[in-house]
Amino acid sequence: MGMVGGGKDAFIGSVHRMAAALDNEIELVCGAFSSSPEKSKASGEALYLPADRVYGTFEEMITKEKALPEGVRMDFVSIVTPNHMHFPPAKLALENGFHVVCDKPMTLTLAEAKELRDLVKKTGLLFCLTHNYTGYPMVKEARQMIKDGKLGKIRKIVVEYPQGWLATKVENKQADWRTDPSRSGIAGCMGDIGTHAENLAEYITGLKITEMCADLTTYVEGRRLEDDGNVLLHFEGGAKGVLHASQIAVGVENGLNIRVYGEKGGLYWLQEDPNTLIASWIGQPKQIIRTGVGKLSEAAGMNTRIPAGHPEGYLEAFANVYRNFANALRSVLKGEKPNPAHLDFPGPEDGVRGMAFIETVVASSNSKEKWFKMIE
Amino acid sequence: MGMVGGGKDAFIGSVHRMAAALDNEIELVCGAFSSSPEKSKASGEALYLPADRVYGTFEEMITKEKALPEGVRMDFVSIVTPNHMHFPPAKLALENGFHVVCDKPMTLTLAEAKELRDLVKKTGLLFCLTHNYTGYPMVKEARQMIKDGKLGKIRKIVVEYPQGWLATKVENKQADWRTDPSRSGIAGCMGDIGTHAENLAEYITGLKITEMCADLTTYVEGRRLEDDGNVLLHFEGGAKGVLHASQIAVGVENGLNIRVYGEKGGLYWLQEDPNTLIASWIGQPKQIIRTGVGKLSEAAGMNTRIPAGHPEGYLEAFANVYRNFANALRSVLKGEKPNPAHLDFPGPEDGVRGMAFIETVVASSNSKEKWFKMIE
Amino acid sequence: MGMVGGGKDAFIGSVHRMAAALDNEIELVCGAFSSSPEKSKASGEALYLPADRVYGTFEEMITKEKALPEGVRMDFVSIVTPNHMHFPPAKLALENGFHVVCDKPMTLTLAEAKELRDLVKKTGLLFCLTHNYTGYPMVKEARQMIKDGKLGKIRKIVVEYPQGWLATKVENKQADWRTDPSRSGIAGCMGDIGTHAENLAEYITGLKITEMCADLTTYVEGRRLEDDGNVLLHFEGGAKGVLHASQIAVGVENGLNIRVYGEKGGLYWLQEDPNTLIASWIGQPKQIIRTGVGKLSEAAGMNTRIPAGHPEGYLEAFANVYRNFANALRSVLKGEKPNPAHLDFPGPEDGVRGMAFIETVVASSNSKEKWFKMIE
Amino acid sequence: MGMVGGGKDAFIGSVHRMAAALDNEIELVCGAFSSSPEKSKASGEALYLPADRVYGTFEEMITKEKALPEGVRMDFVSIVTPNHMHFPPAKLALENGFHVVCDKPMTLTLAEAKELRDLVKKTGLLFCLTHNYTGYPMVKEARQMIKDGKLGKIRKIVVEYPQGWLATKVENKQADWRTDPSRSGIAGCMGDIGTHAENLAEYITGLKITEMCADLTTYVEGRRLEDDGNVLLHFEGGAKGVLHASQIAVGVENGLNIRVYGEKGGLYWLQEDPNTLIASWIGQPKQIIRTGVGKLSEAAGMNTRIPAGHPEGYLEAFANVYRNFANALRSVLKGEKPNPAHLDFPGPEDGVRGMAFIETVVASSNSKEKWFKMIE
Repeated sequence: MGMVGGGKDAFIGSVHRMAAALDNEIELVCGAFSSSPEKSKASGEALYLPADRVYGTFEEMITKEKALPEGVRMDFVSIVTPNHMHFPPAKLALENGFHVVCDKPMTLTLAEAKELRDLVKKTGLLFCLTHNYTGYPMVKEARQMIKDGKLGKIRKIVVEYPQGWLATKVENKQADWRTDPSRSGIAGCMGDIGTHAENLAEYITGLKITEMCADLTTYVEGRRLEDDGNVLLHFEGGAKGVLHASQIAVGVENGLNIRVYGEKGGLYWLQEDPNTLIASWIGQPKQIIRTGVGKLSEAAGMNTRIPAGHPEGYLEAFANVYRNFANALRSVLKGEKPNPAHLDFPGPEDGVRGMAFIETVVASSNSKEKWFKMIE
Repeated sequence: MGMVGGGKDAFIGSVHRMAAALDNEIELVCGAFSSSPEKSKASGEALYLPADRVYGTFEEMITKEKALPEGVRMDFVSIVTPNHMHFPPAKLALENGFHVVCDKPMTLTLAEAKELRDLVKKTGLLFCLTHNYTGYPMVKEARQMIKDGKLGKIRKIVVEYPQGWLATKVENKQADWRTDPSRSGIAGCMGDIGTHAENLAEYITGLKITEMCADLTTYVEGRRLEDDGNVLLHFEGGAKGVLHASQIAVGVENGLNIRVYGEKGGLYWLQEDPNTLIASWIGQPKQIIRTGVGKLSEAAGMNTRIPAGHPEGYLEAFANVYRNFANALRSVLKGEKPNPAHLDFPGPEDGVRGMAFIETVVASSNSKEKWFKMIE
Repeated sequence: MGMVGGGKDAFIGSVHRMAAALDNEIELVCGAFSSSPEKSKASGEALYLPADRVYGTFEEMITKEKALPEGVRMDFVSIVTPNHMHFPPAKLALENGFHVVCDKPMTLTLAEAKELRDLVKKTGLLFCLTHNYTGYPMVKEARQMIKDGKLGKIRKIVVEYPQGWLATKVENKQADWRTDPSRSGIAGCMGDIGTHAENLAEYITGLKITEMCADLTTYVEGRRLEDDGNVLLHFEGGAKGVLHASQIAVGVENGLNIRVYGEKGGLYWLQEDPNTLIASWIGQPKQIIRTGVGKLSEAAGMNTRIPAGHPEGYLEAFANVYRNFANALRSVLKGEKPNPAHLDFPGPEDGVRGMAFIETVVASSNSKEKWFKMIE
Repeated sequence: MGMVGGGKDAFIGSVHRMAAALDNEIELVCGAFSSSPEKSKASGEALYLPADRVYGTFEEMITKEKALPEGVRMDFVSIVTPNHMHFPPAKLALENGFHVVCDKPMTLTLAEAKELRDLVKKTGLLFCLTHNYTGYPMVKEARQMIKDGKLGKIRKIVVEYPQGWLATKVENKQADWRTDPSRSGIAGCMGDIGTHAENLAEYITGLKITEMCADLTTYVEGRRLEDDGNVLLHFEGGAKGVLHASQIAVGVENGLNIRVYGEKGGLYWLQEDPNTLIASWIGQPKQIIRTGVGKLSEAAGMNTRIPAGHPEGYLEAFANVYRNFANALRSVLKGEKPNPAHLDFPGPEDGVRGMAFIETVVASSNSKEKWFKMIE
């Protein structure tokens, strides 16, 4: 793995490295960790990389690594930069035959996302988008239960992603780029976390959002992007729902959660208690479904490492995305067809959906029309 | 207390009687318990009432009781019939000088509600609307905290009232009238429980809803009124919010809950765990505020009976409404001015707000306009 | 109902009155509310009792009431005094043909308890001991599940009753008599709340404690009775367990809870969340059994008033004890045999067990012997 | 790092490898993964190790690695075998100058533990015992709060470690050795998990157990070691407590938890919800202290990787033990004095305490004496 971005003080770069390392299946071999060559060098050193595999730019990294012999050169690129710097290295990597792991949202615009998706199709390379929250075993269990019809036809979906860390004017590296349109894109809260909520809802239910009615707000004075949004949703097949996300929900840490109600049952999952899935049924006691307990789906089982009651958390879910990608890649590198279960990681279509969501939610919020079709 | 409605098999009538009895401050002295005189008689007998105080109609009750000497005749009427039968007895009672306790929503239409409100004003009698959920001590604590500015300016309000009991076609006395427009009014879910959510949000925050965007749905085939609704809200002063209520949220019992986020803090309260109020602050641990623990507001204290950890529930909160009303009434009967703390029960203005909410939410849902002003 | 004790400022007297009133089945008709005739009179007046039914002593009350005609005189005596004043009025009431409801523990000594039990047997009168925590529907559900063999043979029982209100030197009416051996008996914490834990464990499992090893402690300087105790338990049939109770568990309100593990399943119930019973099974998701949800035992159903999600709490559980007693008494007064389900209230045998527990736990704590047989 | 044990199908070996890998600070360079050389080889291959660094026995590994040049040879040995195979490789490693990480309990007997401790002292090498549960940030926060006197003098400690996985006769690799005295030692449940409870209680409170009264039981027929135990505890300074652990608590996953009550406050921590620490105070709302939220101790901060609300779990806590050890070792290897904060990992004294606990708890359970002094 070669990394683009993720120098010192970066939050998500370090997360990607831990996630990739956890299972002893992926080795970081090179990186272009910063737009500043000095910082990149210092970061590489701190990561015990040899100096000649630490590059000043992603262009240099891709070019020089390509020139290395197979087995030595990196197998794939991991892109962990702010949003505006996803597209350029991803495109270059794909054009040079490197598989890609990319942080979300996929790009700065929907047009870029589509271009990237088409490039992935054309090259046949693997592209993984780290919508990490779908890596949790209980999310996979929920998806499988719905797929198996246990809830009956889905009627209502409530997905929320409240956070409180931007309730006041915060100035630090993490806050700065997320509230800067030139680096974050046209949405703040909705791009950073709203897309996770959208992705989670569509992943778990298998239903696509068809139209929405959005009400975005910037509460903190001087902030240039919205820090809160409430959205009514219509899904294909007649399901309806609510999505709301916030960065000003004081005291909430990282409260992504989803409730799904069908004709026969309901499900509730909360990211902060990720190994629990509450299932409710008509006229029956609720069930506490737990990671590692009893008979679960194959997908839940394959994304669990340790016995029940030994909590696996955010990094393990993130590592599941990497591990599935790595397992699929290993097959591809051997010229074999990947196990379909290993292809259970978010890909370019999820990225395009995410960018479409961002563009639609902003347009809807700016419009006086009640219902806004999902932009395609 | 004389009761209108609440015969055998009625749910809410029995709740009113228990709530009124709990504190040994109110005595049931007469009633017209059913539209069928036979049923009324049987119900009165089961309640140990003397036969001559059990009436065949509310008209008879009001007339005959009025003729009894003071100290013997009922002091007030409690109306616990389905919605369409709130207005007639309430009006007649007021016109004959009886104070009134009335179940919610106040009437069948906004026009009736306004007529009743005006009659209350004119007569100077007490009128209590049993929006019972505001009777919980932790709801009063939340209201006081916001009034005291502890949360700073309010930004976001999420209020939910999910239930699952109508997820399938249910046929029983409780379900029948609630899904029948001639007895329930123009709304189903929104009238039955959505109004509680609206009332709770406005009571706790002290802010009025100014406009909304609603999406109501009838999921169960053949049902004549909506059984689910999602609503975006704007409040006076710039706060925004979401209200959703449902009768098809499989497995949810009676999940009324509210989250309020201000500039400085947040609050969370859930009716099913009513003695707990979670307060969140910027950069501080969350606090678990509990009924009876430590220094609480006067309002919380006055609406608590027993020490912390001895859970008071739905009936106690309902009884708080009755007890406050009874205390205020006792002052009025003595010709004294009631203690303002005893006037802390929902009244005719709350009823008018509730009916306005119902008419607006239905109109909004039927409209293609995004924002619909609250009907006045 | 005639009441002994329970004047102004008393905690438990007011609880008994609310519990008795809730279901509109029991009327307070007289009382001797205090050892001070003046206070008794004032209390009776505040309770709207006629002056001639408020007595200066329990002896006076029993004598004068006995002289009243049937239908006018009280049907039973409710004793809500501190522990040392349970035996005298209970004995006198029984000797004069009055049924009795008595707060727990039954008496000051085991010898008194046995005398009272024998008197109850001899007179054939009803005697109800308000071990109120067994009045909760989920406690009854737990008991029935174990009776039905759903957990298999019981192996381990952990019952706890932590409170924190005496963590410091507290001086008020409630604290004073509970820490005074002459009014409370030989135990403090163990008499006041340890007996509830013992009663709950034996009620739910149907198993008797056979021997124990106790370690009682007085943490707060100057206190004359223990304020904490840890006890190892052996039950008949080979089950083992732990009981611990405390009044110095800072911040704990009223945390009575029990866990029972059998060969096939486990149960957990916590008084502060009384409408929830968690059942665990081998290789299956845990179940959240809830008051009013789905198919429950007859006993749970008969002790529930309102639909699921409308929390019934401490007073409702207490009222269940009174209501069952009242229903049984009504049959007895008619010369009929009570419905066995109405006899589901704690009686004199529970009282004797409780006093035996108190005497054994104190003796065990004072002994160097490891195991101490339950005193009979 | 060179590993002893941890071949295919081993649970804890794989945990150690993930924990060591997570932070990109430790590299697995060799191993003797099994008592069968074939299995060892296969395991090493699956771990991408070169064939010449995979050894057939730990003796071979230690000898051959010692012969390798510095910088190539392993820096330390990680021992992840069943209990009876801790002592021999640990001793040999220390004697050959290798630092050691060792799974718990330290050895098969107290005598071995003392021998090892003395050897560590003599050699001056680092020895880390993976009592991993003390690696959680909230455990460290609890310890610091007590150290800082926030709870006042400690009075009562309740520590529990219930599990349910051995509620029936289980036969698999994990169950087999844990219930076999020749591999597990004289205790089953108490050695496997009771020692974690003991270690947690002493770590958090800083108080040593001085004497105990134990009641151990084997519930499952045919099992050779106890699967449940209840213990009364006395601590130095007058604190008292209860420790109970179980492998037959049906449906409980891995429920290690502790409650500590002092004169001024109380704490509660549960391993299955590890990022939450509940603090209770006299007359104040409880506080929900959370990993990463607000101002926490330096120790908590240094053992946290990612922002609040991104749950860190069992592997991260385990990795904290490894990371602290690795950081200390890095200093030692450079000839520098380790940062005291990096020495915050369990060491040989904890191991000796654990073995003393095991021997005492078994002796106490077999004795008729009430109180049994902790064996030294």
